[in-house]
Amino acid sequence: MEATQHAPHLPNQYRDDPVLRSHLARALPAVLLAAIEPDLDALGEQAAQAWREARSRAPAVPLLTRWDAWGGRIDRIEVTPVWRRGAAIAARYGLVAAGHDARHGAHARIDQFARVYLHHVASEFHTCPLAMTDGAATALKRSGDVALCERALPRLLAREADRLWLSGQWMTEIGGGSDVGATATVARRGANGQWTLHGRKWFTSAVIGEMALTLARPEGAPAGADALALFYLETRDAEGRWNGIRIDRLKDKLGTRELPTAEIHLDACPAHLVGEAAHGVRRITPMLNVTRTWNAVCALATMRRCLVLALDHARHREVFGRALIGQPLHRMTLARQFAGFEAAFELVFFVVALLGRVEAGTADGDDALLLRMLTPLAKLWTGRLAVATA
Amino acid sequence: MEATQHAPHLPNQYRDDPVLRSHLARALPAVLLAAIEPDLDALGEQAAQAWREARSRAPAVPLLTRWDAWGGRIDRIEVTPVWRRGAAIAARYGLVAAGHDARHGAHARIDQFARVYLHHVASEFHTCPLAMTDGAATALKRSGDVALCERALPRLLAREADRLWLSGQWMTEIGGGSDVGATATVARRGANGQWTLHGRKWFTSAVIGEMALTLARPEGAPAGADALALFYLETRDAEGRWNGIRIDRLKDKLGTRELPTAEIHLDACPAHLVGEAAHGVRRITPMLNVTRTWNAVCALATMRRCLVLALDHARHREVFGRALIGQPLHRMTLARQFAGFEAAFELVFFVVALLGRVEAGTADGDDALLLRMLTPLAKLWTGRLAVATA
Amino acid sequence: MEATQHAPHLPNQYRDDPVLRSHLARALPAVLLAAIEPDLDALGEQAAQAWREARSRAPAVPLLTRWDAWGGRIDRIEVTPVWRRGAAIAARYGLVAAGHDARHGAHARIDQFARVYLHHVASEFHTCPLAMTDGAATALKRSGDVALCERALPRLLAREADRLWLSGQWMTEIGGGSDVGATATVARRGANGQWTLHGRKWFTSAVIGEMALTLARPEGAPAGADALALFYLETRDAEGRWNGIRIDRLKDKLGTRELPTAEIHLDACPAHLVGEAAHGVRRITPMLNVTRTWNAVCALATMRRCLVLALDHARHREVFGRALIGQPLHRMTLARQFAGFEAAFELVFFVVALLGRVEAGTADGDDALLLRMLTPLAKLWTGRLAVATA
Amino acid sequence: MEATQHAPHLPNQYRDDPVLRSHLARALPAVLLAAIEPDLDALGEQAAQAWREARSRAPAVPLLTRWDAWGGRIDRIEVTPVWRRGAAIAARYGLVAAGHDARHGAHARIDQFARVYLHHVASEFHTCPLAMTDGAATALKRSGDVALCERALPRLLAREADRLWLSGQWMTEIGGGSDVGATATVARRGANGQWTLHGRKWFTSAVIGEMALTLARPEGAPAGADALALFYLETRDAEGRWNGIRIDRLKDKLGTRELPTAEIHLDACPAHLVGEAAHGVRRITPMLNVTRTWNAVCALATMRRCLVLALDHARHREVFGRALIGQPLHRMTLARQFAGFEAAFELVFFVVALLGRVEAGTADGDDALLLRMLTPLAKLWTGRLAVATA
Repeated sequence: MEATQHAPHLPNQYRDDPVLRSHLARALPAVLLAAIEPDLDALGEQAAQAWREARSRAPAVPLLTRWDAWGGRIDRIEVTPVWRRGAAIAARYGLVAAGHDARHGAHARIDQFARVYLHHVASEFHTCPLAMTDGAATALKRSGDVALCERALPRLLAREADRLWLSGQWMTEIGGGSDVGATATVARRGANGQWTLHGRKWFTSAVIGEMALTLARPEGAPAGADALALFYLETRDAEGRWNGIRIDRLKDKLGTRELPTAEIHLDACPAHLVGEAAHGVRRITPMLNVTRTWNAVCALATMRRCLVLALDHARHREVFGRALIGQPLHRMTLARQFAGFEAAFELVFFVVALLGRVEAGTADGDDALLLRMLTPLAKLWTGRLAVATA
Repeated sequence: MEATQHAPHLPNQYRDDPVLRSHLARALPAVLLAAIEPDLDALGEQAAQAWREARSRAPAVPLLTRWDAWGGRIDRIEVTPVWRRGAAIAARYGLVAAGHDARHGAHARIDQFARVYLHHVASEFHTCPLAMTDGAATALKRSGDVALCERALPRLLAREADRLWLSGQWMTEIGGGSDVGATATVARRGANGQWTLHGRKWFTSAVIGEMALTLARPEGAPAGADALALFYLETRDAEGRWNGIRIDRLKDKLGTRELPTAEIHLDACPAHLVGEAAHGVRRITPMLNVTRTWNAVCALATMRRCLVLALDHARHREVFGRALIGQPLHRMTLARQFAGFEAAFELVFFVVALLGRVEAGTADGDDALLLRMLTPLAKLWTGRLAVATA
Repeated sequence: MEATQHAPHLPNQYRDDPVLRSHLARALPAVLLAAIEPDLDALGEQAAQAWREARSRAPAVPLLTRWDAWGGRIDRIEVTPVWRRGAAIAARYGLVAAGHDARHGAHARIDQFARVYLHHVASEFHTCPLAMTDGAATALKRSGDVALCERALPRLLAREADRLWLSGQWMTEIGGGSDVGATATVARRGANGQWTLHGRKWFTSAVIGEMALTLARPEGAPAGADALALFYLETRDAEGRWNGIRIDRLKDKLGTRELPTAEIHLDACPAHLVGEAAHGVRRITPMLNVTRTWNAVCALATMRRCLVLALDHARHREVFGRALIGQPLHRMTLARQFAGFEAAFELVFFVVALLGRVEAGTADGDDALLLRMLTPLAKLWTGRLAVATA
Repeated sequence: MEATQHAPHLPNQYRDDPVLRSHLARALPAVLLAAIEPDLDALGEQAAQAWREARSRAPAVPLLTRWDAWGGRIDRIEVTPVWRRGAAIAARYGLVAAGHDARHGAHARIDQFARVYLHHVASEFHTCPLAMTDGAATALKRSGDVALCERALPRLLAREADRLWLSGQWMTEIGGGSDVGATATVARRGANGQWTLHGRKWFTSAVIGEMALTLARPEGAPAGADALALFYLETRDAEGRWNGIRIDRLKDKLGTRELPTAEIHLDACPAHLVGEAAHGVRRITPMLNVTRTWNAVCALATMRRCLVLALDHARHREVFGRALIGQPLHRMTLARQFAGFEAAFELVFFVVALLGRVEAGTADGDDALLLRMLTPLAKLWTGRLAVATA
């Protein structure tokens, strides 16, 4: 039979990961670890299974259909088969809920992000809307808006797939990306007190979610970032039709292709004000911090996957008479990358632990400041390192 | 809201079909009908559901991937989501098995083809490999080859999805379509007595099946149709690799696009002789007759679907001040087509009943001759009528 | 080398067509025929060349891009490579202009449609917008609107590719297809007297044209077909941007896939009234008659191509020991189809000659009535026959 | 009108490039520069034009069709429209030939690579086969094989599109990439002295070329790199059919998607030995050095394009109240990247000048050694820098 390249094999990604396991053994009480380990083991098994499955079929991408056969505008987004199973896994393993589980106090975030770390690569970036869902739950809690919390939190933190909601976080506009103050979406208040949003969002990662948090400028408000308000909206009406939302296009990207990132127009989309009609940027900040942490954890997961595959390859590929792993230069390169990964892992899970303590109210003196400083740094560094590793 | 066309709605396709129901009431004993009616009702419901689902997603087609990422030739065919559920439905409702159910004697074929008729349009032409599977079971039974029957029949007639086999019927070659005597595939017998097939099949409708019946010319045999032998082969080895079969291409067709019709090469594909090393055409004839009957029944199903949709449209579409159905010329055209359909239905189910009686050994005098004469005629006529109706 | 099917070969389609050549020898003065024969020969050669080329590449379809990379709505339609060369051929061979060439009097239409007949299949249905362009020129001439004629006719009848305009004929709406009286597009007249169109056209075959004729109901006019007015519009502004036109979708069709048939919205599209603000259906009728004639001629061309390919196949394919063409039943089937084609050819070119005489003012007594009666019949019959032949 | 992002505009890429112009003014005699400047200006104009065109159509990729409609294996590769015009441009501007133009002595390479630098981005990586063509010409010249040189050089160095040949360089195999000694392709010598190649090449960038240089192990030769021989082959026979070459797949890549990189099998592909039946790696080395230089020059071109676009964006994008270019951090980042680019430019064109001198026989003492050392370093550094810049 003809020679082929070695097809990499991934074992259970929990059992096979000494970095994660030794960290959890140190970071979590033994009773808690024992309680969650079956879930971690299952997620590790599923990660291995997802890898095999992904190799056994052609890649799929989401598909936008704007019009149905009868001339109705529908803007239907068909997600990939893996995404269709995403909510069931997220609910079953509490990928969002675990981080808000009061029973585990300061450990809730460690528990959660260990799960996220194991699931990320298998999820085809379904972790992206989950991160925003987590961020939305966090921001709503901080908002103190009881009615919205009562409506949305049981959904965002649901552990049953048919109840689980995903949330978008719609920030980026054509004129205002990094400079959020240039946001051009306008919020109008009708005679009945109902706000509606009018504008265009240029990069919405989770338009498939049931709700979103977004920024808009109340009609008549001054320019600048401070005058923006935070709005809560639900994407569909009771019949499942879009609530004043038109999907213009799914972004054509080099990577994260399974993620249906959309460009949209808001065309009188009904929304609820979160807090006062200004200072929305401040109110959405807790969401950003949570999603940055997800970003860092998912960067770790990506790095580890790359390294594990590279190692597997190096063990099987023969060059110049021996396995690649036996070639000193290659070995050193891999070792250096593994070391970078481990350092990043410790930093990120240090931030995760800080977040847990701060949220649980068990933080010491400067923990809150440290968290504020380290979260964006950990996101930036792991992002760069993951790119360099890949 | 903007005007759109009326989106057709299909109710339960069993309850909504007086032609089928009144025929079955006449053709089947009440006890048998009562026993199978829950299945017919479920198939009718599923047909309605499949219609709605098909309208709610983009059309899918099968996909051939010849090489994996590591350079291995795999010739993987990914079928559509509906096809992936095909075996479960076929097994659950006995779409093949019901026709061979000795308990129902001469009625077994009526039972079976009522099911097939209800399922056909919902199946995305998965009825095509089922027809061949039925044909293969029928041909193997007639062959008298006990070993092959013991191996294959429990699979072809299985009522459990994980046991069910599908069979191909590989006849058409580039040089020999209608003129089967021009078949160029050669069968060689090895020193160990094992036959292998060498050649090319130009139109294989069910290459995704686990087995196939095919014609080949034993090495050294004379030219002409009589010298061809019938062979049984299994498409995969124990590890799931192709058994000396290469998939060249899936046909690019105007219709039946979900059906993965393939062009293939046989490259030392191991096979078993069915019967003697000649007269294979005669041995495969029972298969052809069964698949012709499937063809006629499926043509009926297609006609009915077209007519039901046309009627639904005519009831909702207004032209020149009233519903289309109220316009005499349109009404007359539809009525004529419905009449043609009903006549075809009675002919086809007359043939089905004949087939049941002949197979059950309860046929009268000329029934066998009548069956032989009417089967190809019913196939031809319904095929033409279905095209004209569509 | 492995056996393959015979790949059909087409010779020069003018020289190879005795039906056309003998007809032209009878129908045209020898001097005129001699003058145009080099063009006919070139079109026949090009038809043969186009066939070879089409076999040497993958099929192409037009592509709609709604948004550019920077967020601008562009609704760009990229046509196929053959279409990109369409205007050059249409201008060079006067496919529209020849029919209006006063020098040839009553023979102009025969000249023109001989060209169209030779070019149709090679054009990938580019003859469809050409037919409408011819229709628009004819309808504008009849309208007596001097300003519009001075503006548009030199473009529609241009013999230079860079001056040639194509015209659409936008009739079909969701609620009004056959029942044109149900047209829902509204025409509004602004304070400055400028009309704008508002509505949706459901089937626009030549949206890529520079202009279109279309029907709309002046605001405030009563219901019914009589109250519709005919409008002339130009599709692009001076910078090449759409004039109040949005392209919703290109139709996904079974055939004529190279033709970019669009569903569109008119969103304040500026337009000029042709004639009075009513009786538009009457005014667009000359366009319909001309396009019907094109339809009949193109159906002839399609039929001939099918028959020529079938004959070529029958000469090369061997079954049961001789060429298919030598099998009596097959020979008879082909002969019958050729006979039907020739009869259709004579009918259609009789209608073409009538049209030429009527337009040239050289018609006898009942010619105009005969033309009116035969045009739709010739279209219907050749359409049905072409489908049956294919 | 709705806000959109600024659509970048590129002016003439020769006139707009002070780095290139000042370098050429220093490096070339004024007479020579004046003589070639019209070409450089035209290439710069064409680069700007190609940018606009690429923005005005959907991206295209090459397409492999393995089988024709009649069952013949054809392995046809349809390249993109830009590639279809590639040979005409390469010939017209002497993109390969200029580097071998003896009239310009040591300046020939500077002339050539200024052209390549201007053309690269516009070419959709058509420079890749041109690089190999240049490498093949260089390697053949060094080989001293007069017959091959007489046959191939006038084609490889042609300045007429219809005479120009492209050459592949087929090195990489599944088992032997970096470790070329693991090459598994076997060369067999027939009774008539004709060599044929048997094996598989895993990464062939220019399989669309008319010829290729490749390595194979003569049957019976020992293992290891030294025993490999260099072979010259022509890809097509006189009828245009593949010469014992099967195209398995075009690689699915993240970038350079217009480049039809293929996986192929050599199945008795006729070939000519270049030099003796061993030491092929040494003989192909001149080719590698030339393609490395192309790589470095093309990396420069890519960097410059990225920077020019980034600068254009920074001039038009407003954030926090002024153009991005006015923000100190952004300005500094860009400046640093421009500086890196300029340094890389000087290094690469220093290597180019060295190459010219060495080839022209006008090199001083250590120039040849310096060239040998700097060529791979310049390739590595510019490759890394280009990735970092992008």
